[in-house]
Amino acid sequence: MLSAIHSLLDNTYEEMVSIRRYLHQHPELSFQETETAKYIANYYENLGIPYEKNVGGNGVIATLKGAKPGKKVAFRADFDALPIQDEKDVPYKSQVPGVMHACGHDGHTATLLTFAKVMQQFQNELEGTIVFIHQHAEEYAPGGAKPIVETGVLKDVDAVFGTHLWATLPLGSIYSSHQAIMAGADRFEITIQGQGGHGAIPQDTKDAIVIGAEVVSQFQQIVSRRLSPLTSAVVSIGIFEAGNAFNIIADQSKLVGTVRHFDLAVQEKIIQEMEQILKGICDSFGASYEFNYIKGYPPVVNHPEQTDLVLQSTKEIDGVDTAEIIEPLMVGEDFSYYLLEKPGSFFLTGANLEGNDYPHHHPKFDIDEKAMLIAAKAFANIYLAYQE
Amino acid sequence: MLSAIHSLLDNTYEEMVSIRRYLHQHPELSFQETETAKYIANYYENLGIPYEKNVGGNGVIATLKGAKPGKKVAFRADFDALPIQDEKDVPYKSQVPGVMHACGHDGHTATLLTFAKVMQQFQNELEGTIVFIHQHAEEYAPGGAKPIVETGVLKDVDAVFGTHLWATLPLGSIYSSHQAIMAGADRFEITIQGQGGHGAIPQDTKDAIVIGAEVVSQFQQIVSRRLSPLTSAVVSIGIFEAGNAFNIIADQSKLVGTVRHFDLAVQEKIIQEMEQILKGICDSFGASYEFNYIKGYPPVVNHPEQTDLVLQSTKEIDGVDTAEIIEPLMVGEDFSYYLLEKPGSFFLTGANLEGNDYPHHHPKFDIDEKAMLIAAKAFANIYLAYQE
Amino acid sequence: MLSAIHSLLDNTYEEMVSIRRYLHQHPELSFQETETAKYIANYYENLGIPYEKNVGGNGVIATLKGAKPGKKVAFRADFDALPIQDEKDVPYKSQVPGVMHACGHDGHTATLLTFAKVMQQFQNELEGTIVFIHQHAEEYAPGGAKPIVETGVLKDVDAVFGTHLWATLPLGSIYSSHQAIMAGADRFEITIQGQGGHGAIPQDTKDAIVIGAEVVSQFQQIVSRRLSPLTSAVVSIGIFEAGNAFNIIADQSKLVGTVRHFDLAVQEKIIQEMEQILKGICDSFGASYEFNYIKGYPPVVNHPEQTDLVLQSTKEIDGVDTAEIIEPLMVGEDFSYYLLEKPGSFFLTGANLEGNDYPHHHPKFDIDEKAMLIAAKAFANIYLAYQE
Amino acid sequence: MLSAIHSLLDNTYEEMVSIRRYLHQHPELSFQETETAKYIANYYENLGIPYEKNVGGNGVIATLKGAKPGKKVAFRADFDALPIQDEKDVPYKSQVPGVMHACGHDGHTATLLTFAKVMQQFQNELEGTIVFIHQHAEEYAPGGAKPIVETGVLKDVDAVFGTHLWATLPLGSIYSSHQAIMAGADRFEITIQGQGGHGAIPQDTKDAIVIGAEVVSQFQQIVSRRLSPLTSAVVSIGIFEAGNAFNIIADQSKLVGTVRHFDLAVQEKIIQEMEQILKGICDSFGASYEFNYIKGYPPVVNHPEQTDLVLQSTKEIDGVDTAEIIEPLMVGEDFSYYLLEKPGSFFLTGANLEGNDYPHHHPKFDIDEKAMLIAAKAFANIYLAYQE
Repeated sequence: MLSAIHSLLDNTYEEMVSIRRYLHQHPELSFQETETAKYIANYYENLGIPYEKNVGGNGVIATLKGAKPGKKVAFRADFDALPIQDEKDVPYKSQVPGVMHACGHDGHTATLLTFAKVMQQFQNELEGTIVFIHQHAEEYAPGGAKPIVETGVLKDVDAVFGTHLWATLPLGSIYSSHQAIMAGADRFEITIQGQGGHGAIPQDTKDAIVIGAEVVSQFQQIVSRRLSPLTSAVVSIGIFEAGNAFNIIADQSKLVGTVRHFDLAVQEKIIQEMEQILKGICDSFGASYEFNYIKGYPPVVNHPEQTDLVLQSTKEIDGVDTAEIIEPLMVGEDFSYYLLEKPGSFFLTGANLEGNDYPHHHPKFDIDEKAMLIAAKAFANIYLAYQE
Repeated sequence: MLSAIHSLLDNTYEEMVSIRRYLHQHPELSFQETETAKYIANYYENLGIPYEKNVGGNGVIATLKGAKPGKKVAFRADFDALPIQDEKDVPYKSQVPGVMHACGHDGHTATLLTFAKVMQQFQNELEGTIVFIHQHAEEYAPGGAKPIVETGVLKDVDAVFGTHLWATLPLGSIYSSHQAIMAGADRFEITIQGQGGHGAIPQDTKDAIVIGAEVVSQFQQIVSRRLSPLTSAVVSIGIFEAGNAFNIIADQSKLVGTVRHFDLAVQEKIIQEMEQILKGICDSFGASYEFNYIKGYPPVVNHPEQTDLVLQSTKEIDGVDTAEIIEPLMVGEDFSYYLLEKPGSFFLTGANLEGNDYPHHHPKFDIDEKAMLIAAKAFANIYLAYQE
Repeated sequence: MLSAIHSLLDNTYEEMVSIRRYLHQHPELSFQETETAKYIANYYENLGIPYEKNVGGNGVIATLKGAKPGKKVAFRADFDALPIQDEKDVPYKSQVPGVMHACGHDGHTATLLTFAKVMQQFQNELEGTIVFIHQHAEEYAPGGAKPIVETGVLKDVDAVFGTHLWATLPLGSIYSSHQAIMAGADRFEITIQGQGGHGAIPQDTKDAIVIGAEVVSQFQQIVSRRLSPLTSAVVSIGIFEAGNAFNIIADQSKLVGTVRHFDLAVQEKIIQEMEQILKGICDSFGASYEFNYIKGYPPVVNHPEQTDLVLQSTKEIDGVDTAEIIEPLMVGEDFSYYLLEKPGSFFLTGANLEGNDYPHHHPKFDIDEKAMLIAAKAFANIYLAYQE
Repeated sequence: MLSAIHSLLDNTYEEMVSIRRYLHQHPELSFQETETAKYIANYYENLGIPYEKNVGGNGVIATLKGAKPGKKVAFRADFDALPIQDEKDVPYKSQVPGVMHACGHDGHTATLLTFAKVMQQFQNELEGTIVFIHQHAEEYAPGGAKPIVETGVLKDVDAVFGTHLWATLPLGSIYSSHQAIMAGADRFEITIQGQGGHGAIPQDTKDAIVIGAEVVSQFQQIVSRRLSPLTSAVVSIGIFEAGNAFNIIADQSKLVGTVRHFDLAVQEKIIQEMEQILKGICDSFGASYEFNYIKGYPPVVNHPEQTDLVLQSTKEIDGVDTAEIIEPLMVGEDFSYYLLEKPGSFFLTGANLEGNDYPHHHPKFDIDEKAMLIAAKAFANIYLAYQE
């Protein structure tokens, strides 16, 4: 059956491209992607595959039940775009000023839709059930994955898979990880409240710049002293702002930064250490602070068994020359919520377009569309392998 | 003669007040005080005391030669105003929007003019020569004192004195110091050039916030480790600015601050230590820096003998109950240039206006005008005592 | 053949134990283990297996050539003991005061000798060649592995394996890693030369304690800012010594510490960053330093393919219930030198003795001797699997 | 009368020298100086001047009541020696091994005794009363001054004076200060209790060296940020000791240091800031600390009026060419206790011996004995001036 599926996918490649280009020209921002949702729903409507709209927001979920008993496996594609002005010079350029599919979600959607269309052809021979999760709002926390999972859609699902077309990995490569593949990416904001005063009378002040500098310095010890050397994490302060006048001691300093981690327990430990350092340092000056820690998506932590299945089942795909383990990426993804609920694996599908090395979120970002075909075939292989 | 002088000064008190109030209503900014200069010149013109205009800029210098031989003694009053909106509710409020005599220089001028007028009455009995230095542009570096001194006006002067009416010291008090009475007040600007990058990939960056924090921390050691404990100095950073995004490591940090000192050798030492710390810390990160140190006025360092003369000769003035040593103020003054050239002493004349405790440079700043009378009598006493 | 080998190994278990206990009673320190070397050589002499003595020092290497062609595979056991007083109360307690097999090398040797004896029984059926490397001086850098490898003994060897009986892992477990399994463990000594002086006259000194404190603080940034978050490494300062009198500013401070890493490139980067920090900080004070970095053994970095072979081939051994990946240990091992020369894998054989949880290098350290049998069977399985 | 006194003092110079040399050969350590006390008591016994023994310990206090009414003025000389081996090559070298008058207290005693003897000659003409305080144990805290003052000896004394012969100031010079002339010199000991552990597992430890380094760094801000720039003080850490092994993270660090100040309020502020920093920093690591602050003698803070009297009344002494203000010395002295009780002034009498520039407390320390004569004359002048 696999080669028949692959062959049909090859035949729908042109449609895949045309769907992707249509979406590329009509991008919608996170939580506002109603037209895209309608487009997706309409597609399933036309196919006659049962689907639900407005799942957890703008989500659309379709279900294809095979004629034979088997496992229920979900595949997810996100479909929101970014507030970026498209600067590419191509016919399928975004038609919406300031909005762009600069992360490949258009390609994810085209892949999943045509995968559904093709699998429907094999419904009679098919074991198990395929769930097609079209998720809105991946780019903007709190994201669409969480409310979708909370609707209970994964309740009787056995496993969940997803891929990200990746513009800086070569076409023909598939990468995953047995553990975390994407980071938890958080944001924090700290306001240190000292006491201002004349630059020449420091003894009557609590110098918020000196206090902030101590905090910056001690935060460096979280990773180096307070976490296991075998744990990967980052604490970076991106903004330090304090003071308005050269001869006035600042009463406040503002520190804004990011934490990256691959483990929720590590996240908790980092928050707790930040708090302890802030409290201790501020106490040592008689100053106070506000600490606002905004958790981003949890890390995307793959399950080893499903990851092995991904790598084993995809390496023989025509056009795939690499199916390997990769070090985790430092970016975030809300696919994590699916994996906190069910076993599964998230993988990267190399999509580098020759001559275009612009990274994700760049105004000139683009993908090699042939990666969509590889991704669709990978879904097919994974699905069938999982039924064995 | 002294009591006769005092008596005449008492009689001119009303004029003193009216001069001060006229100037208060017509303030002019530093280096733009041409009308005030004309007013002063005109006053001497009317008196028939010889004077020079445009000395070192807008300066006006008059000279009263006594009939008898004696020493040549200079008194200085500054006459520029500040870019502050007058918020007092008084009839003599500033008539120039956004400009105000918020530091008492109007009072200094009224004092010196009427002192000249009165002393002229005693010209026949007078030993020595009095030089009346009306200086422009004290408030704004590089100031008027330096170019006035550079004209050679002090060449055959034996000593130079000046006072500052001081709104936060009680009426009836006179204060001076055997050493520094006002600080050298400098400004510095530092730009640390690291290398920016993704907040999650610190190893490819040189984190300008971390570097800046180290610099802040080590600058604290200049005063505590690198200067004599018996030396007074301050190094304060008033502004720390770095970074634009929570998840981008900043490539640059900007530190702006002030140094206060009471000794030009200490100033040099501080600059040298700042440079050494900046260089070492930046090297330790492979970063670079720009260091711009803008010297303000030198500290006002009194001469002990002339200070003793000030305190001894003024303590018996009617209405003066205190004539004492005071700890130096942390603010700057360009009277320093006179004292680098000739012996002399700068003193504070208490001018606190009952019910108004606003400090100098405040929009509601005001003085008790009776302090002008005390200051004028102090000049008289100092002059006569100096001739003995 | 495998089950026949296992069966014969079962039969030699008593001899295995008696060899181990004999060695346990006659431990010898690193580089002084001549009697143990003789004992080993004698054992091969009696078996009639060809061997070489004094390889790279006290090393003994025997070679068993199978009758059939095949690959050449080396197994290594180390045989030196430690300068520790045996505090166990057992009949086989060390008879040498202050010297003890507190790391299980006696067990390694007994395992390899009886493995050789048993494999000899199958010489006619055997494919390939087995090399038995008995290495001296693992416990004391520069160790015995390096000179043994330098003799060229691995020249035509296809792969090399070794195990460490591990007292804190449960009997029945086998662990390895696809990457580093043991750390590079280095030592560094830093002397900071400031300038001493009276505690009340800091300005004439360069305070070596303050300088040292800055170095301690900045060293914390090596791991947190200057290495990839995905890299594991530690920089710890274990000793900070400076000053003799409460009121004298110290002229020197001494910092002694350790670096752990899993990658020689990371080691180089750390050394370079330490040097840059030291130079920058010392320059910022006008001080100087001496930096002595003593490299320990390189990290033991396994090869993934050979590690898969170890885990796959050993998991079916009777009595083995776990054959898995483990996070790297932070200790060092000179097995690294073999793996820098040839593919291979180093694995841990669980050897926890019920009721005795003392770690390696403890005066009451002991092992469950049944672990030796598992290790010998593991060698057999690995060897045969490698010939396939 | 003054010239008669001076003349008699000149005549007793030989005796002064012989007393000093006798004491120099028979030095006694602080709190053990019983023979010296007997020697002094005996001297007054022979003169017939009433005295008390065992005042506040080994103190001896004599009182000479003049025939005429007047003020009661005390003069103090200390008489203990130091645990130093005399290395001078002179006939009057110490005869006690390891004990030496290396601070000139022998000279102080000889000066005060002969001053008493001479003044007794003028008892009939004398106004007021002279109190001769011979104090034990100046060199070793808690010192002799405190218990002597606590006996109430100063109760009806009007003023108290004392001098220190100073080997590094030129003969013929007298120096004093209107404010502090000698520092408060304290000692502190800090033990930081972190949690030790393996150098490669920092996350399970609280690294006492890192904590200690932060404390060292923040202590630098006490002087630079938390005290007035016009305040003189020093906080120096002379000893930093932590850790025993390069690869073990230290559980404890020990910091020992000194504080110098010139004002008891500043001392309190410093202690409070040290405590606040220690608490905050240790809290920021979850560590604890012990803080032991041992107050030394308070600063010797002169009274301005009595200081003026000292400088005015001594400048005309034959052989005195300098009588001036000096910056405070950083060393301690328990003369402070007298000045906390009564007005007075402590001054330095230059005693540099040509060709010997060894400082106080040096094994080769010595004085020009002619300084004793100047000191005795200074006492006479001060006493008489004070009666006016």
